[in-house]
Parts: sequence; structure tokens; C-alpha cells
Amino acid sequence: MAEDFDLLIRNGDVFTGGALCRCDVGVRNGVIAAIADRLDAPAARTVDAAGKLVLPGGVDSHVHIDQPSGSAAEMCDDFDSASASAAAGGTTTVISFAWQSPGESLAGIAEDYARRARKSRVDYTFHLTITDPTEKVLEDELPALVAAGDRSIKIFMTYKGVGLKDKDILRVLDAARRNRALVCVHAENHALIEYLTEKLVSAGLGAPKYFPLSKPMTAEREAVNRIIAFSEALDTPIHIFHVSGAESAAEIERAQQRGLKVTAETCPHYLTITADDLDKPGFEGAKLIFGPPARTVADQDALWNYIRRGVISVISSDHSPSRYDDVKGKKVAGEDAPFSVVPNGVPGLAARMPVLFSEGVSKGRITIAKFVDLVSAEPARRFGIFPQKGLVAVGSDADFVIWDPERKVVIRNEMMRHAGDYTPWEGFEVTGWPSATYVRGRLVCKDGAPVAEAGGGRHVPRAPYPLIE
Amino acid sequence: MAEDFDLLIRNGDVFTGGALCRCDVGVRNGVIAAIADRLDAPAARTVDAAGKLVLPGGVDSHVHIDQPSGSAAEMCDDFDSASASAAAGGTTTVISFAWQSPGESLAGIAEDYARRARKSRVDYTFHLTITDPTEKVLEDELPALVAAGDRSIKIFMTYKGVGLKDKDILRVLDAARRNRALVCVHAENHALIEYLTEKLVSAGLGAPKYFPLSKPMTAEREAVNRIIAFSEALDTPIHIFHVSGAESAAEIERAQQRGLKVTAETCPHYLTITADDLDKPGFEGAKLIFGPPARTVADQDALWNYIRRGVISVISSDHSPSRYDDVKGKKVAGEDAPFSVVPNGVPGLAARMPVLFSEGVSKGRITIAKFVDLVSAEPARRFGIFPQKGLVAVGSDADFVIWDPERKVVIRNEMMRHAGDYTPWEGFEVTGWPSATYVRGRLVCKDGAPVAEAGGGRHVPRAPYPLIE
Amino acid sequence: MAEDFDLLIRNGDVFTGGALCRCDVGVRNGVIAAIADRLDAPAARTVDAAGKLVLPGGVDSHVHIDQPSGSAAEMCDDFDSASASAAAGGTTTVISFAWQSPGESLAGIAEDYARRARKSRVDYTFHLTITDPTEKVLEDELPALVAAGDRSIKIFMTYKGVGLKDKDILRVLDAARRNRALVCVHAENHALIEYLTEKLVSAGLGAPKYFPLSKPMTAEREAVNRIIAFSEALDTPIHIFHVSGAESAAEIERAQQRGLKVTAETCPHYLTITADDLDKPGFEGAKLIFGPPARTVADQDALWNYIRRGVISVISSDHSPSRYDDVKGKKVAGEDAPFSVVPNGVPGLAARMPVLFSEGVSKGRITIAKFVDLVSAEPARRFGIFPQKGLVAVGSDADFVIWDPERKVVIRNEMMRHAGDYTPWEGFEVTGWPSATYVRGRLVCKDGAPVAEAGGGRHVPRAPYPLIE
Amino acid sequence: MAEDFDLLIRNGDVFTGGALCRCDVGVRNGVIAAIADRLDAPAARTVDAAGKLVLPGGVDSHVHIDQPSGSAAEMCDDFDSASASAAAGGTTTVISFAWQSPGESLAGIAEDYARRARKSRVDYTFHLTITDPTEKVLEDELPALVAAGDRSIKIFMTYKGVGLKDKDILRVLDAARRNRALVCVHAENHALIEYLTEKLVSAGLGAPKYFPLSKPMTAEREAVNRIIAFSEALDTPIHIFHVSGAESAAEIERAQQRGLKVTAETCPHYLTITADDLDKPGFEGAKLIFGPPARTVADQDALWNYIRRGVISVISSDHSPSRYDDVKGKKVAGEDAPFSVVPNGVPGLAARMPVLFSEGVSKGRITIAKFVDLVSAEPARRFGIFPQKGLVAVGSDADFVIWDPERKVVIRNEMMRHAGDYTPWEGFEVTGWPSATYVRGRLVCKDGAPVAEAGGGRHVPRAPYPLIE
Ligand SMILES: [Zn+2]
Ligand SMILES: [Zn+2]
Ligand SMILES: [Zn+2]
Ligand SMILES: [Zn+2]
Ligand SMILES: [Zn+2]
Ligand SMILES: [Zn+2]
Ligand SMILES: [Zn+2]
Ligand SMILES: [Zn+2]
Repeated sequence: MAEDFDLLIRNGDVFTGGALCRCDVGVRNGVIAAIADRLDAPAARTVDAAGKLVLPGGVDSHVHIDQPSGSAAEMCDDFDSASASAAAGGTTTVISFAWQSPGESLAGIAEDYARRARKSRVDYTFHLTITDPTEKVLEDELPALVAAGDRSIKIFMTYKGVGLKDKDILRVLDAARRNRALVCVHAENHALIEYLTEKLVSAGLGAPKYFPLSKPMTAEREAVNRIIAFSEALDTPIHIFHVSGAESAAEIERAQQRGLKVTAETCPHYLTITADDLDKPGFEGAKLIFGPPARTVADQDALWNYIRRGVISVISSDHSPSRYDDVKGKKVAGEDAPFSVVPNGVPGLAARMPVLFSEGVSKGRITIAKFVDLVSAEPARRFGIFPQKGLVAVGSDADFVIWDPERKVVIRNEMMRHAGDYTPWEGFEVTGWPSATYVRGRLVCKDGAPVAEAGGGRHVPRAPYPLIE
Repeated sequence: MAEDFDLLIRNGDVFTGGALCRCDVGVRNGVIAAIADRLDAPAARTVDAAGKLVLPGGVDSHVHIDQPSGSAAEMCDDFDSASASAAAGGTTTVISFAWQSPGESLAGIAEDYARRARKSRVDYTFHLTITDPTEKVLEDELPALVAAGDRSIKIFMTYKGVGLKDKDILRVLDAARRNRALVCVHAENHALIEYLTEKLVSAGLGAPKYFPLSKPMTAEREAVNRIIAFSEALDTPIHIFHVSGAESAAEIERAQQRGLKVTAETCPHYLTITADDLDKPGFEGAKLIFGPPARTVADQDALWNYIRRGVISVISSDHSPSRYDDVKGKKVAGEDAPFSVVPNGVPGLAARMPVLFSEGVSKGRITIAKFVDLVSAEPARRFGIFPQKGLVAVGSDADFVIWDPERKVVIRNEMMRHAGDYTPWEGFEVTGWPSATYVRGRLVCKDGAPVAEAGGGRHVPRAPYPLIE
Repeated sequence: MAEDFDLLIRNGDVFTGGALCRCDVGVRNGVIAAIADRLDAPAARTVDAAGKLVLPGGVDSHVHIDQPSGSAAEMCDDFDSASASAAAGGTTTVISFAWQSPGESLAGIAEDYARRARKSRVDYTFHLTITDPTEKVLEDELPALVAAGDRSIKIFMTYKGVGLKDKDILRVLDAARRNRALVCVHAENHALIEYLTEKLVSAGLGAPKYFPLSKPMTAEREAVNRIIAFSEALDTPIHIFHVSGAESAAEIERAQQRGLKVTAETCPHYLTITADDLDKPGFEGAKLIFGPPARTVADQDALWNYIRRGVISVISSDHSPSRYDDVKGKKVAGEDAPFSVVPNGVPGLAARMPVLFSEGVSKGRITIAKFVDLVSAEPARRFGIFPQKGLVAVGSDADFVIWDPERKVVIRNEMMRHAGDYTPWEGFEVTGWPSATYVRGRLVCKDGAPVAEAGGGRHVPRAPYPLIE
Repeated sequence: MAEDFDLLIRNGDVFTGGALCRCDVGVRNGVIAAIADRLDAPAARTVDAAGKLVLPGGVDSHVHIDQPSGSAAEMCDDFDSASASAAAGGTTTVISFAWQSPGESLAGIAEDYARRARKSRVDYTFHLTITDPTEKVLEDELPALVAAGDRSIKIFMTYKGVGLKDKDILRVLDAARRNRALVCVHAENHALIEYLTEKLVSAGLGAPKYFPLSKPMTAEREAVNRIIAFSEALDTPIHIFHVSGAESAAEIERAQQRGLKVTAETCPHYLTITADDLDKPGFEGAKLIFGPPARTVADQDALWNYIRRGVISVISSDHSPSRYDDVKGKKVAGEDAPFSVVPNGVPGLAARMPVLFSEGVSKGRITIAKFVDLVSAEPARRFGIFPQKGLVAVGSDADFVIWDPERKVVIRNEMMRHAGDYTPWEGFEVTGWPSATYVRGRLVCKDGAPVAEAGGGRHVPRAPYPLIE
């Protein structure tokens, strides 16, 4: 006898977009087919979710995977390990980067990443990282790539060999507007950071704890303001990556008040780690070197306020994993190296949802609806894959995370299921933890352990960005 | 053979909380029982909604019905006509007022209104309008009334015999906090309005077109600021009624930025009518006398901005119907009467959703998701009846409006199905119109005509307000 | 042989309006006749000011003298002692209050104060304190009083029996506008203070340290906002008295940004005393009970910023002296009395200029030019007696304070030369002290000791306020 | 018999720093020796100023004289003609530029300008314009130049070959801080202007009226924000040149509110000319091509507000004269040339004070005291030559302008006494006009006609900037 459903999740508290409802969810062909008070039809697999939340799988819209570093250092996660980490943390879709290095063809790179991503266990799509916006890239390659479904662009305002000059930023925004692509921005003032870095390092202040001084809020605020001015002048939407504190968020709110098309994300590390945390014995602080850097407790309070009011609408991980005790990682230049030659970034894919749920929902700062919006619905919406992703609704992909809201867990690196040798939240206690993760109805992680082989994830193509008309 | 569903709505584009999904919705016992790509079970009644939107029925959180006026004038709608008008406009729940006149028992009034509301065709609940906050009212009566489910309070800062003094406002806020009731506020400075009214009228400037000068934005902004200060001092949430323009909204945003528990509504008339519209021949302008008054086009633009950014989160009708050509209505003091003796208010129950859909969604100012939030989900949430009301989800009440997003209609008063003799939107063209309205699975309006007898609506009790802990 | 000058001050560093110049100043008939690099003409009296500053005598625009308290308490300074204190601190003109108690004639009161002030050693003029704005007061008496030279009005928004209701505030502003008088405002929300006072006192929290909680910044900010709204609505200039902290000042700046005619003062006690200072053993904290109350260190920092940027343009003393150890003073209701029955106010006439010079100029927060502006030129300008007062220039009154900028003094109550038994700055060390004070060329204080008998001061009449056209 | 005074100005209404006083002023050796109600001593020259204002001579802190253009175009004024123009307009001190072209020695340039300036009829001092901040310039030359008295620096953020990159801006600020020099900034975003210029010109929109579109307020606001961020990061004071409208001024106010050391100027052309004025037949609009460009009436209103409140504290001319009908002037590339190759700038030295007096004082927007502050005292203060310049006080230089406040004049180019062939205010009527101008007691202009030969002006050396400690 034919089964009605491939998967039936019963008795959960399902977040269907507006509220939690106690109901059953039936899946057919990887898609949600029915939501009802009771589904009695036969199913290939039935799961009892009583006492658990059934949430849309997370969408992490800022994840670095299998990416060149431009130095002897290497990012430690490929699509196999990164997607295992995603699944372990409840995330079912990642937006990673097709990363052009200077001189490279963007089209070639995109093809290359399509190949690399075949190992992914979760679904994925790409931002096109443009570091060398030649005429060929912008005029020949970009239109086809956007048409093929990757219609967001990532640019940097800082980092040597990667950051774009104002003139090139404007050229990219212009091309993005014509091709209806959304531009994501790493916004920090390059010259100021170089100036301060040089001052600090030449004064012998190269220990990790001095790193935040080299990238002050002023440098970030300035760049945020500048990219907003460019966005305003060219009437082109932008998305600001990793807002680290109050001053940048205030600039973004001012832009939104003026009606500009500016959105923003922050990351769990900006909500839980401060600049003072880098002041650790020896080289240990290097584990927390990421840019923009951690700020203050007052900034964290401000970020929560901006999150609650919707000024910051997305929480991503900015997963940028370097191993700590590794000559291809944080120690690429040795343990006495100044911060200026330490690879930036922390892993965060698996920790993103548990840390935010715990600090947000369990501590009463945000509702469950807001949590889902921040980690799943809004990133899906902003990047053009909603409601296929980011929503439990009939017709949407059957991406779920079964969430135990009461479970207390002390985070250990091995739970993160990435290739890194540390997590910045080692020993951090959270309340709320994923029990199981499903991608298009397929179980990919259960009780913290990946259950599938590498692969199985699919590319999610996206239509051109609708805000530009 | 027993039927599976009492009502089956098929093939609609259903807004289930996050997005529109093409699916079927099955109703059993007045509640949504199933949402699925296809429901083939037998049903007592099946409706084809192909090409239509299926939205949660509207929740109008500010509606005056069967209310004493304190003068010879009379509001023209009782619960029969008002609820017919609600249904005609797609609204399935109204929050009306149990209106205490000075000297009256609030408990007695609440009982009285429970009786009057039996004629309602749609569901309803009550704000308790307190005009005489005696010790007895606040200490004896209020706790029981909140416990019985009406846990919001309405107060006025202006209007003779109705407006409360600062001291009494504080006493009400204090009682609201202790009883966990939400306080809704009509915020305008009474003394300034009296002063200006007296100046204008004694100078012979009593024609309707001078009415907006008697209630300037400054008077509203001041009162909004003051009630926010009181809310802050006593840490008690408030909801600001009928924000009419930019300056008041700016005060509310400042409060929200400080983290205060302040929310706000505006109404369709503030988005479509300006002060200049009162400058009409003869007494005609009296049709547009409502308080706070209509403002400017710049205020309308600002309101849309505040709506989009969530500073203003609810759109109500402030339905306050007086007949125009009637000695118990606008002409209670004759056609040459100064504005100061003309009853304030316009009817708006039926027009609320079509006008907002047309000006908002059809004109590209807001998305359908935002529309649903403003007219249904958020009022339900803010007033404690969500997700029973305001959401199409399994377990929620089967309140629907089947909406034709393409239909163009020129509004005529007879379409409003209220007892009034005019609508402020006479001749106004809208795109988007309700085809049918269901309350708990029961059809109450079809193609603009009420299909049920008076009655059938139920009181929706509400739990104490959760924000006060 | 006739002398050229009655008084010749030589070799001082004279502040002549824009900068310090080393020069001689010659006085004739109480007026400055010449300023020159060297004046060799014969003079009745010659003073060597080498090494000293020669500044315009202070103008203290907010001083309570010989004023009824409405209770058994009594202010301890009459015009004899108060003007001795003024002279001791370098102040040569005071603006005191002709204080109407409810039921009294304002004209009668003004006459009465003209008589009382004959004992003054320094010049003076009056604000008209209106507590009972009858038709007679506003329409009959006020025009004549303004015409006679006292064209500023003081009103209260709080204090029982003194504070005006909104309606009466508007009537006073209207009359002020018609008569071209400037309205000074004590701005605190009365109802909120009464509410909080009742809560605190009835909870047994009546000790002096709880006083600041009864008059929170929110109460002040609200009233400041409200009086600004009234000023805006009636287009009538106002001057806000004793701004105590950041939030009120921010409202004032917003008003100035909108172009409104709103100015403001603060007082030395808000710059040097915090709410925590009231937490002293026994009843001692009562010495620091003044309203609005002392705030926080952050508020002090903000006030300095607002002072530097000109948002707050006047520093007055708000001299309001009650004796401490006196049944007519702070202890009028005994030593265990709750703060609610303790007379408000501190003495400050003599300390105003030294405390501000020391905290401002000596500590590098403001320039000497700014100091002179705050304590002398700007109050004179704002209240219509400039450049007769507030400026060392040819033709101006010969009011000087010879100031020793280097002298260090530990303040003791006896130096204050008032009738009070304490000063809030007992033991406070200052750098900078007045050496001698001259009123219209007449020496009134030398080395801290009054040299003249009571009397000698003159009333300074003022023309109607020019800003209202 | 020896004369007491070289010059005696009698019976004028003299602005001595705080107010106008009717008095006599005696000058000896180029310095003010006495100010008195009556000076009867013999004098070499006596002038009757009855009915006139006697004001400190103007200080114009932003004047381009005898400056290379980097192209075939030439500025038309040398120190002879420019200083004649200054004197004709009441200005007695100019701060011009020692302008380094790329590759040049700054020290050599400074020497060169010292030579060129010998032809000046008014006093002068220099900003050091740095366009090529080599190590040698910043480390070797700058310290000596600052020590020699020219301690302000001018930098550009735009203009090809002149504008500095962020990195070099930071290096200049760093050197300025170490040497205690004040940095003046032409703030516009270079890349955005280049981008828009290229778009406009290549679209055939090169007529003068399109020039303002190529330099939008957004470009200026962005650069102002950025230079403020740099000033904040390095704690180095800056002075923003030629603020053209509301958005830039708002950024400056935000900086001042945060306590930053940021000051600003605007110019008469921003207060009287709008972008629409460039829309003239043929090439005529090129006369009004200056950068930043003219904006809107709303910007002008905003600028007056910022001026009144002190956010903008200096009014300079930004005198940058190109002849119009001249192949070395505006027509260097012909009459059909796109705006991008037309020399920027307008002459303004002579018109500055009359235009501001008329638009400001005569029209009631500002007081005479404010006028003097804006055009004389504050530029002198900000650039370190106060009270030697900018004040009528004993010991100050005897620089005066005798001003007729009632005289109505229709401005014609020949009255400007510069070498240019047009003035932007041709035909503009003003009320208030200089009658005579004195530099250190020497008459340099009378009734609009220069009375002295070229030369006679002196360099005014300045001490290092005191704000950096
Ligand atoms: Zn980044
Ligand atoms: Zn990143
Ligand atoms: Zn109302
Ligand atoms: Zn209402
Ligand atoms: Zn007071
Ligand atoms: Zn007082
Ligand atoms: Zn410039
Ligand atoms: Zn210039």
C-alpha cells in the first residue's frame, strides 16, 4: 500500500510562521504537504516531537567555506565538515562565498565552487565575492552569474588585496543595480586600521589584546556611513555584514529612517564576547581575533535593542574557521606574532542557533518568533529563498530543526562537528539545543551526530533581487 | 458518512503567517483543522478560492459601538449594524469599548455591554473606558473585570468630562500595572485645545476648516510625550491610539529606542485625508471632523515610513460614526454651528481593510505580509487574542476573509453596511476587495452582503497582559 | 582742582567683552568713562589691580530674597544679608522675585518688594512671580508693571498652591506675549512628584536620601517638554530655570534646533553635587534638599557639554536659603520629618562665581570669556539690562569684581556673608576668588568683608522684551 | 606739541566686544590706545564717525590669492588686487594659502608666498596647503613653518592631483597633532564626484546647470563624516571649510555634541545662491560654478539656523576668482565645455561683509554682535590672531571698518575692486556698506576707493594651536 507521507512529525509545537501550534506535519517528496491537528495517514517514517519545538531549519547567510586565504594560512572547513557543523547546529541552508582572488575569473570561480559544494550535506547558495572588479567581471560575467541564480555580491572595504577603493565600490554598486543583485559589505576603514596597526605593532603592542584597538568602532562606523552614502547616491540596496556595536547600528538606523534600502546583520560573537576577553595569557587571545573585533558590554546591550526593534534583522555566524594550534591556522606566524599577521575569524556555524536561542529566548530578551525570524525567515527573505526556505508551511521545503527548549548543554568543541580545534564558546552553558535536523525531509543530524554521508545538499538558485525596479 | 470538515476552502493563496501558500484549508468545529496541498476529505461546504487570497479575518482594535455621547448627539451604530459593517470589510473581531460615564460603575457598564454585544455578527472583546477612576472602580471593580477577560483600559487626556487629569492618569496606570492590563490612550493636550478653540471660535473662525487649527500637532505631540513619561516612570506599557502625523510618531520612536514598552496605531483616514480636505462649501467639512484631526501630505508620507519600520504597528478604524444630515449627528447644533460643538469621528469599520490594502499593497508601499500584520496579526497579538485570532494556522479560529486582490471598486456609502449616511471615502477608488468573510467557519458576508442574522459573535476573553512581570 | 575720575583701576587684566586687555579703567558718576593703555588723570580713588582680573560684576538672575514660604518656615535672607552675600561673591546685580501669594494683588506685591529692596547693597530688578493669574492680575496689573520695568514673569509647574495648571500657564503665556514679558519656568510635573512622594513617604522612605527619587529626571523632562510645546504653540519666548541634567537639556536643544525661542540656566549645585550626596547620617542630607534635585556624575558631564555649546547659556545661583538647625528652616517639622515637609532650597549667592570659576576656568572646562558670559553678560542680555550691566565698556555701569585667579580658598559658611547657618560647599576648595566688588564705582566688598551699610543698590528698570514683535 | 594720538575716531557706535558703545577711540602706533566717552587730546588725524558703526576690521580666513591652478587657467587676483578688494569690503586681514603643488618643497613655497604677499595692502597670514605630504614635508619642513607662525594646514579630499587619499590624510593629521597645527579641510568624496561627473558628461549633460548634480550633498556629507571620524580617532582638531547645506552641518553638530574639536565655516554664496541659479542661457551659469556647489533654499534656511546656534561659527569668502570672459578663466576650454573642465570658484572678498550684513543683520536674522563674531572675531580666535585682530579693545591692532548700516547699495562688479570681470552678486541690493577701512590706523580704503599703494600689509605670525595638549 502506498504511503501518504515520506515523513510525519507528530505532536510538536510547530512554528508555522506566526505562532507555535501543536500539530502534525506531513512531508512528501521533500516538501511540506500537510499540517493538521492530526494526520493519521501512513508514513515511511514517523517522528514523535512531543515536548519539542518544530522550527524551520536555520539559514546562515554568512559562512566562509573552503576559501583561499591569500597566505600560508588555510581555512579548515570544506563543504563536508562545514555542512556537518551546520546540521549539528540546526542550520539547513548556508550562503557561502564564491570567492574571486585578484586576477581570477569570477565565472570560473563560481564553477569551481559549484563543484566543491557537492560535498555539502545541507542546501546552499553563493554570494559572489568580488575582489577584482574588472570590466570583464562586471560586464561579461556578472549578468550570467546572476541569471544563473547567485544574485548577491560581497565586497570588502578593508583587507589588503581584497578591499576595494571607493571608485571600484561605486562600479560594483552600479553593476549590481543594473543586474539586480544585492551587495553585502564588510565595512571598516582600511587606512585608519592600517595606520593604527602600524602604530601599535611598531610600539611593541602586538599581543592579541591590542587587536581591538587597531580596529576601533570609529573605523567601522565611518565605513558604514560611507557605504550608506554610496548606496543612497546610486539608489542601490545594501546589506551590512557583522555590525559589531552601537555606533554602526545607529548609522544604519538613520539610513532606514531616511527610507534607504539598508539592512544589517550581527553575529552571536558580538553578543557574547567583549574586547576584554582577548586579554588572556600567552597567545590564547588569538582565538578571539575576528574583524570587526569584539566591543563592550554596552555595545552588546545596544545590539539587543537594535535587534528587537528590527534595525538589525539577521543573525549569521560569519563562520571563518582557523585552527588555533596549527601552523596553517592562528599560529601561521608563530606564537609571538603580532595580531596583524594572525588570521582573522572564528568558527560559529554550529553554535549560532543554540547561543542565540539561549541568550535571546531563554533569557527573555526575544520571543521565539523573533528568534526564528533572525536565524531563518529573514535571511531567507533578504536573500531571495523565502518561503522555499525559512518557513514551515505547505509547499515549503521540509527543512526542520526539532528543538528542545529546555535542554541545558555546556558547549564543547567536539559538539561543533567542524574541523577546527576550538570554539570561542568552549564551556559556555546554553539552554535550548537541537535534537534533530532535516533537510528536505531527510534526517541529517540526530542528537548531535551527523547521520548522512557527505553530499546530498543542493544549490538553491535565486531570482534577481526584486527591490530594484 | 460523517464529514471530515465543516468547511473546506480550496486552492486559495493562503497567508499562513509567513507567506502566501497555494493550498487547501479544512475547518472543523469553528477551528482550523488542516492545511495541506490537497484535502480530499468530504466537507459540509466547499468553497473554491482559486485566484483569491485567503487571509486571517481582520482584527479592528479601536471601534466605538453603541456608545453614549454625553450630549444630544448619538453614535449611529449598535452591534448589529457595526458588526455588519465589520464583516462587509473583512473584519471578524472588533475590540469595542465598555464605556463608563462619570459616576457610573465600571462593572455595571461591562455587564451592560456584554448584553448589548449579543447582537454582534462578529467576535468581540472590550477595552474598559475609564472616565471616572474612583477608588471603587480601580480597587474593587477592575481586578474582577481583568480576571474576566477584558484586560485593556482606555483613557482620554482630553475632552470635557472624559479626559483625565495627570493625577488620575497615574492612578489608572498604577492600577493597570498591578492588574496587568494594557492602557490605551487618546493623547492630546486638553488645555491647549481649549485655549485655541476659544480663540478661534470667539474670533468667528468656527467653520469646519478651522477645526484642525484647534488641535495642532503640538497638542498631540505634547500629550504623547507626557503619557510616555508616565509610562516610563511607572514602568507600565501603553498603546497610543490614532497617531496622526510625524511629530507624535517621532516621540514614540524615541521611546522605543530607549526600550520603553510603547506601541502605537494609526488609522486609514490619517493616511488618506488632509486638513485641507475640510475646506469644503457649507457644512460639508463637518464630515471630516475627527480628533486628532487630519494633517498634511508630509505627515502621511512620514506615517508610511513609520509603519514600514514598525514604529506604528497597528492600523485600526477608530470607527466613531455620526450621521451627517441628522439632528442627532454632525448637525446636532445646526449647520452653522462652530466646530467645537460638532460630534467628532468618522465611520471606518468597513473601509479599513480595502483602503489600506489599496493604498498600501496595491500601490507598492507595503507587502501583503505587512498588511496582514497591521490589520490582523499585530492587533491580535498586542491585545492578547493571538494566535486564536489574527492567524491562519492549525488550531486557530477559522476567521477568514477571502480577498480579491485585483478587484477595483469605487467606494459608496451603501457598501459600508453601517447605519451612517456617509463615508469619508465616498467615490474613492480602491484595488482589492473582500469577497467573503467567515467567523469561526461561519459565512457572515458574501459579495458585500451580510448573510447572517444579527448575533452569532462571541466574546473573546483575554488573559492578563504578559509584559508586566 | 577737579578730578577727572571718581575711581581709577589700574594695570588690571580687564575683560572688555571680547578678551582680557591689560589697561586702566576710569569711572565717572558711576559709569565707565575711559579705558586706555594708561590713564594718568587725577582720580578720587585709585586702585592697583596688577595681577588681577577686572571682570564685570556678576548678574545673578535667579535669587530668592525675603520671600514668603507659605508655611511656618522662613527664608533667612532679606535684602540686607542677601546683597551682602552677593557682593561677597562678586555679584553686583540680582534679579529677585516680586512674589504673589494666591489671592494677592501683583501690583501691591511689586510695590511691597520695591520697599523691601531698599536695603540692598547691590542693584536689583524683579521677576514677577505669578501664582494666582486672575483676570485682574493679567489684564489690569501686568501691563503697568511691565511698563514700569519689571518685564519678566516667573511661573511654577509644580508645588502645591503655587504651581499653575496648564490652562493658567497658557493664559500667562498669552498675557506675556501681549505685554512683551519673558516667562521663566520652574518645570517639573506636579502629579508625578506627588504620586511618587506619597508612595515613598507612605512606605517609610522619607529620609533625605529618598528625596531625589521623588522628583526624577522624567518629571523634569516631561515638564520641560510641555512648556516648550506651549511656548511653540503661542510663539512666546521662555527661559527654563535650573536644568538639572542631561534629559532636560536634550529637550531644550531639540527646541533650539527647531528655532524656538527657548533659553535655559543651570546652577553650580547641579555641577558639583549628586543625588548620592544626600545619603548622609541623620538629617544632614536635608541641607541638600533642593528642587529639582541633584542628579548623577553623568548628568554633570552632560551639563558641562551643554554649557560649552551654548544650549545652557546662564548660570544662576537659585539662592533659596533656609537655615538648617532652625525650626523656621530645614527642621521646621523636626529632624525625623520626611523630605516632603522639608523646605527646598540652598543658599548660593556668594558661592556661585567662585565655584563656577574654579570648576570651570581653573579646571580647564571653559574659558574666562565663557565664564563671564555665563555669570554676567548673558543673564544681563537675556533679561534686558545689557550693556548697562554685564559688560566693562565705556558707558556701562561701573560694576566690577576684581578677581584673583590664583587664590586658593577653602569655602566656609562665614565667608558667604548670608544669614544662613550652612553652605552646601562647606570645605570645598576653589581656585580663584573675588578681591573686591564695586557697584557703580562704589566699593561694596573688600577681601570678603562688606564695606558699605545696607542700602545703596538701585532698581534697574527694563524695557519690554524685544523678541516679541 | 606732541600729539597724543595718530588717529582719533569720534562719536561712532563702537563695537568693543560685547556691545555697541557711543564713544571715541584713540590710536597710537597702529594700536588702540584709548576708548573713552570723550577724548579731547590732539591727534594727527581725526575722523567723525557719528551715525556710523565702528567695527573691528574683517578677518577673512579662506582666501585664494595668486595661486597656481594646475592647468592653463589662472586665478586673476594677486596680493595687490586681492587686498584692494579686501579693503573695499571692510576686511583688514586675510588668511591665504601657501600652496604646495605636487613635488614642491613646502618650505620653498612658503618663502615664495612671503615674497608675493609683500604687495598686500592688508595684513595676512597663511594656511599651508599640502598636496604632496612627503616624509620630508611632514617631518622636516612642517615643524619649522609652524614655529615660524603659519600653523594651520589645508588639505583636500577631492580634486585630481590635489586631493589626498585616506592614508595621507591620516599622516597629515598625525603631523598636525605633533606640531600643534589646525587642519582645514575641503571635504567632498572624490570617487563619487568622479563617477557622477563621468556619467553626466558622457550622457551629454555637461552644461553648467548640471554641475551641482555632479557634487551632490551626499558626497559632501560623506566626506565631512569621514574627516570627523579621522579627527576623532587621532584626537586632532579640524575646521571644515565651506559647508554648503543642511546635511553636512548636521554631521558637524553631531560631532560637537560628542565633544569633538570640530568647527566649521560657510560662505555668503551658500546663503544667497541656489543650484537653480546655474540654469541660465548659454554659458552664463559657469559664473556660479564653485565647489561644493550651491544647494537649495531649504539648505539656506538650515544654514542660518546652524549659524545662529553656533554650529557654524565662521563666514569666509572662499575667494577663488576666475575671470568669466577669458581664455585663462571660466572659458579656458571654450564656451561649450562641459562643467568638468571649467575652473571652480567665485570672487567674494569685497562682497563678504556687505552681503552678510544685509542678509543677516538688516533682515533681522542675526544681531550685529553675531555679525562681528562671524566675520572677524571668531575667525581671528580660531586661527590664533585674536585679540590682536578681530576686536576693538585697548592693545589690539587698530583695524577698523567704519560701517554705514543704513546705506543701500546695488552691487556692481567695479565696486569689488578685484581683477575679475564679474561678481556673482551683480545687481544684488544690500543695506549696509563700509565707508572706510583702516589697517593698524592707516586708511586703506575710503568710500569704496583704495587710498594706499600696493603693499603696507604685514604678516601676522601665530603661536602653535593651543587645543592640543
Ligand atoms: Zn567580514
Ligand atoms: Zn565574513
Ligand atoms: Zn480617540
Ligand atoms: Zn476612538
Ligand atoms: Zn525653582
Ligand atoms: Zn528658584
Ligand atoms: Zn575648497
Ligand atoms: Zn577654497
